Amino acid sequence: MKYLDSDHIRLSDDKNTVIILDQSLLPSREEYKSLSTVNEMYDAIKRLEVRGAPLLGIFAGYSMYVLARHYDTKDPIEFGKRFHEDSVYLNSSRPTAVNLSWALNRMEKVFIENIARGIPAVLEMLEKEAVMIHEEDIAMCRRMGEYGLTLLSDEDGLLTHCNAGALAASRYGTQLSPVYLGLEQGINFRLYVDETRPLLQGARLTAYELAKAGVDTTLLCDNMANYAMSQGLIDAVIVGADRIASNGDTANKIGTSQLSVLAKEYNIPFYVFAPYSTIDMNIGSGDDIVIEEREPEEVTTLWYKNRMAPLGINVLNPAFDVTKAENITAIITDKGVIKPPFAEKFTELFKKENNV
Amino acid sequence: MKYLDSDHIRLSDDKNTVIILDQSLLPSREEYKSLSTVNEMYDAIKRLEVRGAPLLGIFAGYSMYVLARHYDTKDPIEFGKRFHEDSVYLNSSRPTAVNLSWALNRMEKVFIENIARGIPAVLEMLEKEAVMIHEEDIAMCRRMGEYGLTLLSDEDGLLTHCNAGALAASRYGTQLSPVYLGLEQGINFRLYVDETRPLLQGARLTAYELAKAGVDTTLLCDNMANYAMSQGLIDAVIVGADRIASNGDTANKIGTSQLSVLAKEYNIPFYVFAPYSTIDMNIGSGDDIVIEEREPEEVTTLWYKNRMAPLGINVLNPAFDVTKAENITAIITDKGVIKPPFAEKFTELFKKENNV
Repeated sequence: MKYLDSDHIRLSDDKNTVIILDQSLLPSREEYKSLSTVNEMYDAIKRLEVRGAPLLGIFAGYSMYVLARHYDTKDPIEFGKRFHEDSVYLNSSRPTAVNLSWALNRMEKVFIENIARGIPAVLEMLEKEAVMIHEEDIAMCRRMGEYGLTLLSDEDGLLTHCNAGALAASRYGTQLSPVYLGLEQGINFRLYVDETRPLLQGARLTAYELAKAGVDTTLLCDNMANYAMSQGLIDAVIVGADRIASNGDTANKIGTSQLSVLAKEYNIPFYVFAPYSTIDMNIGSGDDIVIEEREPEEVTTLWYKNRMAPLGINVLNPAFDVTKAENITAIITDKGVIKPPFAEKFTELFKKENNV
Repeated sequence: MKYLDSDHIRLSDDKNTVIILDQSLLPSREEYKSLSTVNEMYDAIKRLEVRGAPLLGIFAGYSMYVLARHYDTKDPIEFGKRFHEDSVYLNSSRPTAVNLSWALNRMEKVFIENIARGIPAVLEMLEKEAVMIHEEDIAMCRRMGEYGLTLLSDEDGLLTHCNAGALAASRYGTQLSPVYLGLEQGINFRLYVDETRPLLQGARLTAYELAKAGVDTTLLCDNMANYAMSQGLIDAVIVGADRIASNGDTANKIGTSQLSVLAKEYNIPFYVFAPYSTIDMNIGSGDDIVIEEREPEEVTTLWYKNRMAPLGINVLNPAFDVTKAENITAIITDKGVIKPPFAEKFTELFKKENNV
C-alpha cells in the first residue's frame, strides 16, 4: 500500500527545501513544489497549496527548520531575530489556523531553549522537533484509527463529507484513520464520498486520496445521501470536526449537520473523528459558535471557473454548520471513544488529562 | 410584473415559426430561436433548448401547426402523410416525455377530425388546438397556485428544489404557481433555491426566472438546507413531481427525498405541486418506481466543462429519488389540495373524476 504522506509533505534529501504536493491542482495535476524561502512558504499556505489543520502544523515545523538552515549569520542575536520574524510572517498567512501557530510556538521554544548551545546544535534540535511534530501526528491519527476500528466492521459502507484525510494531515488522517489503518490490517470498507459543495473538497481531495490508496470509492453529490442511505449502502457516517463545544455540539464543514439528521432517520451511526485538542471546554454549546459567511462567488461560479447562476442573485454560503450533540453516536479522539452524555464524559476526560 | 411565458414560447407574428427562449444557454445568455423545420424542432428538444413536461406539450402543439402551414401540397392524403411523419419524428426526440406524445396525439386527432373540411379549415383548427393546449396549461397552473396559496402566508420563506416553474411550463409553472399568483395578488414570499446538483437546474433556471420576475431570491447549495432550516429561514418546502404512486410516494429530482426528511425534523410543511395527471394509480408505491442511473460525467465534470474528480472514480448518479408519502404534508393538484391518507383520497378523487 502506498501512503500519501511519504510524498505529500517532506524534507528534501539535502534538507534545504520543504517538498509539498500542490493540493490546489488536485486531482487533475499531481505537481510537487520545493520551497526554500519564507515568501514561497507563505504563498503556499495562502493559495491552499498546503491545507488542513494538522498538515499546516507539520509544514510549519519543516519550514522553520529549512529557513533556519539558510540564515547567513553566525550571530545568535541576528539569527534569533530572523527566526522570530519568519515565524510571525508565516503565522500571518492564516491567522485562524490554530495548528499553525501551535507548531510555530513549539519551534520558537526549541530555538530559545537551545540557542545558548550554538547554531549547529540549534539546527539539530529544530530538525528533531519538526520530525517529532510530524511523527506525533502520525501516532495520534493512528490511535484514532485504532479506536475507530472498534466501532466498524469489515465491508461496511462509510459516507464521508469534506476532507480530513491523509492530505489534511499525515499518513492516516483523522476522519479517514480507520480506513487506512484498516487497509494495513486487511479490513476493507466501501467509501461513499460527498462531493462537498461549494469548494468540492470531497470530489477533488478525498476521492483522490482514497482511490490512490486503493480503497473502493464512490463519489456522490451532496443531495444523494438520503438516496444512498435508503438503499442500504451506508453503515456509518464518518466526519471530521473544526471545533467541538463542551456539550458535544460539533462545528464542521457546511453539510455535516444535514447528514446527522438523515443518519438518525435510518438509525445509521454518526461518528466524529477529531483530536482531543478539538474539544473546546470554553464553548458551552453550538449556539456560541459564530458561523463564517463566505463570498458568494464560491456558490455562483463553479469552482471559480464557470459562472452558472444569474448575476446579482443573493447567496447563502455559510462555511460550516453545527451538528447537534444529540445526533452524534460517538466522538473518536486520540484519547479514546467518547459516547454520550458528552458534557459529563468531556469533564471527566479533562480532569484526568490535566490531573485535576 | 413580467411573465416569462410572454416570450419563452410563442408563435411569430406571421405564424410561420415557433419562437423559443434557448434554455440551454441560461442564465448567462438570453437568446431566442425561431424554428420552422421539423429538424430544428427535434434538435431543440434533444439539446434541452426547450424542456419541462408541460412546455414540451405546448411546444409540440405550436410546432405541428407551424409545420402544417409549410406543406407545399393541396392533396389531403399527402398532407396527412407528412403531418403524421413529422409527429412521429418529433415524438422520437424524447420517447419518455408523456406530455410530448399527449400533445402530438391531440394535434393528430384534430387533423383527422377536420381534414374532410379542407386544408384551410384544418389549419385554423390546428392553430386553435395549439393555443388551447397553451391556455389550458396556464389555467391548470393557476388553479394549482390558487390551492397552494391557501396553505401559505405572506412573507413565508419557501425552499425549492430543481425547476418546475414558468420555464418548465407556462406563466405560473407548477411548483412555483403560488409564488407567481401571489405576486399578482400582492402576496410576497422569500424564495430559497437549492442549486440542484448535478445539472444545476435550481441555480441556472429557477434562480433566473424568479429573479427576473422580481421575487426575493437566495441561492444555496444542496447541503445547506439543514442550516437554513435550523436558522428559521424556511416556512415550507415546495417541490414538483415526476410521478406520484397510488399511495402518495412521489418520484422527483434527486435530492427531493432528503429535503422531506429534514423538513420533518423541523416540523416544516413539505408540499408537492403537480398536475392531477401525475398521479399514477397503476403504481402501488415508490418501491415500484425504477430509478434511472445517469452518466457519471454529470457528477465528475462540473456542468460538462471542468473535470474535478479523479479519473476512473465510481459515481452514484440517480436521476431522481422517492419521497415517502409519510413525509409529505400535502399534494397540491389542479383538482385541489390532497392531504393524507393519500391512498384513500386518491381513490375518491379518481372515482369522482371518472364518474364511477
